[in-house]
Amino acid sequence: MLTSAELDRLCVVLVGARNPLNIGAAARAMSNFGFLHLRVVHPYDVAFREARSAVDAEPVLTAAEEFDHVPEAIADCALVVGTTGDLGRSAKDALCRLETAAALVRERLRSGSRVAVLFGSEKVGLSNRDLSHCQVLLRIPTRTEHPSMNLGQAVAIVLYELTRQSAPLASPEDADADSLPASAGAPPRATAADRERMIAVLLVILDRSGFGPRGPGPSLEEKLRRLVLHLDLTLPDLQEWLGLLRHILWKLEKGATPALND
Amino acid sequence: MLTSAELDRLCVVLVGARNPLNIGAAARAMSNFGFLHLRVVHPYDVAFREARSAVDAEPVLTAAEEFDHVPEAIADCALVVGTTGDLGRSAKDALCRLETAAALVRERLRSGSRVAVLFGSEKVGLSNRDLSHCQVLLRIPTRTEHPSMNLGQAVAIVLYELTRQSAPLASPEDADADSLPASAGAPPRATAADRERMIAVLLVILDRSGFGPRGPGPSLEEKLRRLVLHLDLTLPDLQEWLGLLRHILWKLEKGATPALND
Repeated sequence: MLTSAELDRLCVVLVGARNPLNIGAAARAMSNFGFLHLRVVHPYDVAFREARSAVDAEPVLTAAEEFDHVPEAIADCALVVGTTGDLGRSAKDALCRLETAAALVRERLRSGSRVAVLFGSEKVGLSNRDLSHCQVLLRIPTRTEHPSMNLGQAVAIVLYELTRQSAPLASPEDADADSLPASAGAPPRATAADRERMIAVLLVILDRSGFGPRGPGPSLEEKLRRLVLHLDLTLPDLQEWLGLLRHILWKLEKGATPALND
Repeated sequence: MLTSAELDRLCVVLVGARNPLNIGAAARAMSNFGFLHLRVVHPYDVAFREARSAVDAEPVLTAAEEFDHVPEAIADCALVVGTTGDLGRSAKDALCRLETAAALVRERLRSGSRVAVLFGSEKVGLSNRDLSHCQVLLRIPTRTEHPSMNLGQAVAIVLYELTRQSAPLASPEDADADSLPASAGAPPRATAADRERMIAVLLVILDRSGFGPRGPGPSLEEKLRRLVLHLDLTLPDLQEWLGLLRHILWKLEKGATPALND
């Protein structure tokens, strides 16, 4: 997680953007992730004016700064990162995946540096001249058959990665991706004693239903215990199931429709 | 990294999308990251037709499947994940951050399950009824001052996270934990359609038991769906439960003890 001071040290720089929807989308993603400094270099005038009316991005667009050339837009930045969808550039540039570049950007923001991330125009991306200002060139890991991303989506993904929380891997429980996640303040799990209450009610229901033993193999009780264990119930859910099961049992024993307010 | 067979098991489901640009943008991001199965539920017709002409997303849009309702669109999926920007839902649902949910999705794709990720309409997101089909509810970690994302950008970020390469890990144990092989011979998970069969039998049993609606709040069907979703059943276990439930239903309807060899 980045602090607000760290978020404040990053500038998104759009170079030669042509489509007001993309400028608006970039500004909205910035606002979503808390990066409020937009700089635009030589945008198509109409595009920039129209973008200013984009929904939900007004503060970022109103505060945006306009520049005629890249060097002025990045003058106060210690680290300058370019973005590209073009795999062909990898030979001559320090091209790295977004995940790797983001770690460097976060490290520089934390150490007090100002960082610029440059995005080129929709048609041609960043020019070689623009790239000559970049220390790092990053690529969002799209597939080779279709590498080129929409500008607004590319900005959103880069900013998401910068604010992304590394998955906690400290303990085996944390690393266990096999179980459904528990949210904060998750309800307690049912204990073995709770489960036995549920198994007991199920056994009586099945007995009343004439569900008898079927030859060799585990007993019905063992079979039910295994099935209930697999459920891995929380205590509130177990209590809800118990309520439903007791109602069914009540019906089986009485053979009559219970009152609604029982 | 996901294999192409794993990518192939994920469906992006857009529910009630209104804006052709957003449908087109979602399809383009899918193509960028190699997820080719788009399902649309009750889209605005014009929006869907216009989206079909979106640049750079033609194969995904041409192959997209249309459904009238959510249950049909997710019937063959074992894990159903909803997305929301609404922090207010956190109290009652298993809301988790994208990073956490993505680990679970990847694990299920690797183990051979089909997974659906649902995105709601631009205006209102997913309804409570839509959410009742979801086992996990994920949130992209936007800031609280501006949580709501553009639909096309949200789809792009979720798909990026799913294909994201984990950063170099601290220790060999951690690295192992991150690349657990698919559990060999693990039983398949029940699909949404299997779960609906179980819910249907439970509903009839409770109806035969005179278990009626109890005033305001979610319907009995929604309540049961939530309880059954929490069980996270494998297919063999679900089939065993179905056998037991059908026996109980048989007893409730006949009012007599069935023969042992029924």
